[in-house]
Amino acid sequence: MTTPPGKLILMPNTLDFGVNGEADLQEVLPLGAIRIAARLTHWVAENAKTTRAFLKRVDAVVPLAQPLQALSIVELPRPPKGTRVVALPDLKPLIQPALQGHDIGLISEAGLPAVADPGAALVQAAHALGVRVEALAGPSSLLLALAASGLNGQSFAFVGYLPVDAMQRGTRIRELEALSRRAGQTQQMIETPYRNEALLAALLTHLRGDTQLSVSCGLTLPQAWTRTDAVAQWKAHTSQMPADVPAVFSLLAP
Amino acid sequence: MTTPPGKLILMPNTLDFGVNGEADLQEVLPLGAIRIAARLTHWVAENAKTTRAFLKRVDAVVPLAQPLQALSIVELPRPPKGTRVVALPDLKPLIQPALQGHDIGLISEAGLPAVADPGAALVQAAHALGVRVEALAGPSSLLLALAASGLNGQSFAFVGYLPVDAMQRGTRIRELEALSRRAGQTQQMIETPYRNEALLAALLTHLRGDTQLSVSCGLTLPQAWTRTDAVAQWKAHTSQMPADVPAVFSLLAP
Repeated sequence: MTTPPGKLILMPNTLDFGVNGEADLQEVLPLGAIRIAARLTHWVAENAKTTRAFLKRVDAVVPLAQPLQALSIVELPRPPKGTRVVALPDLKPLIQPALQGHDIGLISEAGLPAVADPGAALVQAAHALGVRVEALAGPSSLLLALAASGLNGQSFAFVGYLPVDAMQRGTRIRELEALSRRAGQTQQMIETPYRNEALLAALLTHLRGDTQLSVSCGLTLPQAWTRTDAVAQWKAHTSQMPADVPAVFSLLAP
Repeated sequence: MTTPPGKLILMPNTLDFGVNGEADLQEVLPLGAIRIAARLTHWVAENAKTTRAFLKRVDAVVPLAQPLQALSIVELPRPPKGTRVVALPDLKPLIQPALQGHDIGLISEAGLPAVADPGAALVQAAHALGVRVEALAGPSSLLLALAASGLNGQSFAFVGYLPVDAMQRGTRIRELEALSRRAGQTQQMIETPYRNEALLAALLTHLRGDTQLSVSCGLTLPQAWTRTDAVAQWKAHTSQMPADVPAVFSLLAP
């Protein structure tokens, strides 16, 4: 199989999705990525509408090679949250433009596609067809939160969302704490913003007092903050969690 | 305690450390980060020499606010690889400039500081002193490799380096494969570039034929490539591993 000339390019997006006030694109994305976004004519997107909004911001920095209306933007079938992305419908048709020589951009609503976000199945389809995959540098709330936490960055895991059921959630939190202690591994999780406060409360209920808990909110935004403290300290001095900005929760048990 | 005006800023570096040929800084770093780097007068660095080289590249895009010679660049005491970073000497003195109102930049030789790199202990010291920590977006080889792999990005772990001893290494590989199968979790590891070939050989020896293995080399560089395949396919069609560029290895057991 000869490698076809088109590539699948994983395009980072900003982290201000659903947040009031947009960041300046050049604050968080490399000019190199913005330039590539401006020339791509074929897109596969988590959401076509937010992709068009992204491309308007790109156009303000580097004029688009073709007008927005002329671009092909195809939406990715979205798997339910938390499922393994391996058993999806055949996505090879979405890779077709690459076989005809066009680079394809893959983009999600925020951050890196295929990381805590849909897209991995499309990347698999590209590999299966021998299409080169190129990931471009950009903001990732998980890695920024990990760096800002000061917790162990030599061994860490991201486990996605916790169960919503209170009993299952408590069990899962204690399981992650035990795993963190055994492996010396930072455990990271996320939550739908309006449930941030509830997840923090559950963590403070179920974690031991000497476990380190770090919470990062609104990373890359003006209101960004990170707090790292022992659970006992969090309980003594509580922090108000914003319900409208994304948060990342990281824990490390001693 | 009132929050002092100085912040600890986690500055991303490029991924071309130790590689022939430098990437254009604007290809991989946001202009916002470059602008902040140009105005910082206080740095804590994994390596002072590579930090000066980085700042020369910054200066070519955004002129430095002060000449290179006038900047304070302090080296971080480096813990041995693979150790937990919790029990280091007191790093609070390095945070002093923030208490006097200066923003401090923390930078490593490549990628994000405090992620698969030293720096977490300094971040902890900042939190302990009530100094705000701000992580800036930039390239991370782990996340770029994960995105480009097409493996599970909803649950993944980075485990650092594997043991060098052949028997221990084999045991660890089978342990990571079992963990990946049980938790449906992608497992990521890295190796010193000159041992890339040896790690690939060990993975192909110890992993089951149906485990997915992804290898990314030289990410963000012109020679970047990613291959994702079942172990049986890797054995049938081997890939030559470069010994001079960093690689990330990711596995997912079915």
